[in-house]
Amino acid sequence: MAPRHRVVILGGGFAGLNAAQKLKRAPVDVTLIDRRNFHLFQPLLYQVATGSLSPGEIAAPLRGVLSRQKNTQVLLGEAVDVDPDAKRVILRDGAAFDYDSLIVATGSKTSYYGHDEWKEWAPSLKTVEEATQIRHKILYAFEWAERADSEEEARAWLTFIIVGAGATGMELAGALAEIANETLKRDFRKINPREARIILMEGGNRVLAAYPEDLSTRAEELVKRLGVEIMKGVMVTDINGQGVTYKHGDVTAKLAARTVLWAGGVDINSFGKQLGVRTHAETDKVGRIKVKPDLSIPNYPDIFIAGDLALATRPDGKSLPGVAQVAMQGGTYAAKAIRARLKGKPASPPFRYFDKGDMAVIGRAAAVANIFGLHVSGLPAWLIWLFIHLMYIVEFQNRILVFVQWGFQYLTFSRGARLITGATETDVDRAKREASASTRAAS
Amino acid sequence: MAPRHRVVILGGGFAGLNAAQKLKRAPVDVTLIDRRNFHLFQPLLYQVATGSLSPGEIAAPLRGVLSRQKNTQVLLGEAVDVDPDAKRVILRDGAAFDYDSLIVATGSKTSYYGHDEWKEWAPSLKTVEEATQIRHKILYAFEWAERADSEEEARAWLTFIIVGAGATGMELAGALAEIANETLKRDFRKINPREARIILMEGGNRVLAAYPEDLSTRAEELVKRLGVEIMKGVMVTDINGQGVTYKHGDVTAKLAARTVLWAGGVDINSFGKQLGVRTHAETDKVGRIKVKPDLSIPNYPDIFIAGDLALATRPDGKSLPGVAQVAMQGGTYAAKAIRARLKGKPASPPFRYFDKGDMAVIGRAAAVANIFGLHVSGLPAWLIWLFIHLMYIVEFQNRILVFVQWGFQYLTFSRGARLITGATETDVDRAKREASASTRAAS
Repeated sequence: MAPRHRVVILGGGFAGLNAAQKLKRAPVDVTLIDRRNFHLFQPLLYQVATGSLSPGEIAAPLRGVLSRQKNTQVLLGEAVDVDPDAKRVILRDGAAFDYDSLIVATGSKTSYYGHDEWKEWAPSLKTVEEATQIRHKILYAFEWAERADSEEEARAWLTFIIVGAGATGMELAGALAEIANETLKRDFRKINPREARIILMEGGNRVLAAYPEDLSTRAEELVKRLGVEIMKGVMVTDINGQGVTYKHGDVTAKLAARTVLWAGGVDINSFGKQLGVRTHAETDKVGRIKVKPDLSIPNYPDIFIAGDLALATRPDGKSLPGVAQVAMQGGTYAAKAIRARLKGKPASPPFRYFDKGDMAVIGRAAAVANIFGLHVSGLPAWLIWLFIHLMYIVEFQNRILVFVQWGFQYLTFSRGARLITGATETDVDRAKREASASTRAAS
Repeated sequence: MAPRHRVVILGGGFAGLNAAQKLKRAPVDVTLIDRRNFHLFQPLLYQVATGSLSPGEIAAPLRGVLSRQKNTQVLLGEAVDVDPDAKRVILRDGAAFDYDSLIVATGSKTSYYGHDEWKEWAPSLKTVEEATQIRHKILYAFEWAERADSEEEARAWLTFIIVGAGATGMELAGALAEIANETLKRDFRKINPREARIILMEGGNRVLAAYPEDLSTRAEELVKRLGVEIMKGVMVTDINGQGVTYKHGDVTAKLAARTVLWAGGVDINSFGKQLGVRTHAETDKVGRIKVKPDLSIPNYPDIFIAGDLALATRPDGKSLPGVAQVAMQGGTYAAKAIRARLKGKPASPPFRYFDKGDMAVIGRAAAVANIFGLHVSGLPAWLIWLFIHLMYIVEFQNRILVFVQWGFQYLTFSRGARLITGATETDVDRAKREASASTRAAS
């Protein structure tokens, strides 16, 4: 008996997991390799950052999800290199895996546009660790404001700047406003959390630039109603422990803030870059790899790319956005293409993204949605958002847990996951001392 | 108008939180100071360590719990010193708080009996961070066993040693056995998780030494039925990355294991020690402070001690154990004593611990309980355990979440919180490399 066709999938995000699941009944041996032991439901990560959900509630262990899929093994590991001619992937620990077909779904990371030093002061929202780090930053800010020695210091602790007004930035701003206005309103004795300033800085001239214009306008109204200040057309030039320096036209200004969150750009991580080099593939400026209509790399028909790493285009020539839906459909397509080839057929028709629409939640009972071209906002959009997100959460158990958390939050404004872990008092005191020391030095 | 009586409470555990809540209607100003922003339901921490619950589900933000209690403020900070004559506590950041009455409920930490170097290899179960660290260790062990190069290496990864067979050790062993036998049984392709060895090492001659003897015997039967091996009368003499060295009588032996968990001794943390020094109080060998019948320190009637730091005795002369019930009742008593004094009355009668009993859960539908002297085991004890623990969880929302998690786990053996976070692949690979390098060096 000939050995079975070996499919190696790199990455267990939306693209990789969907690809693996769609190969369940195919006559192949699947190896899914991921750095983490879980699939993360990224669209709800901002709710972990804002204390509504626990990480466990939006993560599903990959082994558990795939345990009954007999032709599939899951391995913890990080791919660092590939030999596309020998058809082999190499992991960081030196282990090598041979493949007959490779699906690369290693996703993207955050870009600080060449200013990686900002990362220290302005965490982004890509991993579970960053989400809990943001949660700690937000909750600590109110704690230190309560214990501040001067009005000025309290004010800096109560100023929150979010850089980038895409869906993540808007959702963070909305959730932060709700924390300040409702969740914490009775919790402090010296400060009034409602006096917190939440500022959204955007380089472009409208929020949610990827959405139709009327929904941008509506989203801006909704988020302003929560008390969020929006600054459009500003370019951030520096971020440090004191706040943000930005340019607005020719004017350079500073805004003091102890908490800055980065909801900015996207970059390709190192394996994706290495793959581009090894396959001599054409890439765009962030490193996404241009794929053929069947999602394979030119000259390497056995390597498929799905998700954020793929530079695929729509019939109108626009490139597809790096969102969950595109990733899921890409993963599914790659699996189908492999199944078709095993039967000796070409992958046809070519990959075509079926755009069901976009949605962003801005606050309690407030969202905007573009569903099959229908523009909806406010409560109806919010209900659709809730329903769709609950449906797509991977494990039934998590669906129930998230439903319970959301139900309580709707009724009581309480947030179930408001713990600050990880940093000890010592670390924190040091941070506080350093922050005030540098305030003194700066003033 | 005279300023109100100031009560400072150090620690927001069972003792401190109960004391604060019992002062709700008293004519006092309460300041509750804790290093963490949450109250932790410690008795369920082993379920966080074994992936059944998320940290958020057993933690309640102190501010949230006390937000409607107008006379109480919560502060994040760590007390490092006290001046009992000036009636002042000093925090690590230098802030000082004057009190009229002080309730010290700073609890205990883990003791490695003078071998703090073992901590690196054998984490204990005291904080949320340690619980997630243990969870990662356990889950990674199976991952590395799956990827092991040799049978011997796989065997070392699949050997788990728990040191100490008190309630925590027994509960960890039972949960680990369930993980190996049920939760992960379909998840791996090379290894069989059911072949994992779980070994409980105990220095004394029976498990659950604090329990009546018949319950010890029953608990041992229950945990053995799950496949746990019990070694009694062994003294651990060394723990490192390779495993445990122990003495059994005159014989010294080694057991190779990559995962060692410490469910051993108790120590008093540094503030408790400092308090003992400042008040010239009598302490026992771990540093617990001998208190008067009203829980105050001799010569300092304004300082009360509640919880693990207090060395209080029962009428029969035995000292009270460091458990949640004693802490809750101690906190409540200290609050009552302060209220009585404000009315010019002595605190009477003296503190007397009302022992409702002990219980430990050993596995699915298996527990032992001593309730008001009634000895129960098996399913009835387990049901009582479930009910009581659900009742005592602080927030209603968490009660529902824990109920959902337990319900699913009972029905499906799935564990909702099985993520490995915090360590990157790079760290892990390094750990793995180092572990195998030292294996080679040792062999």
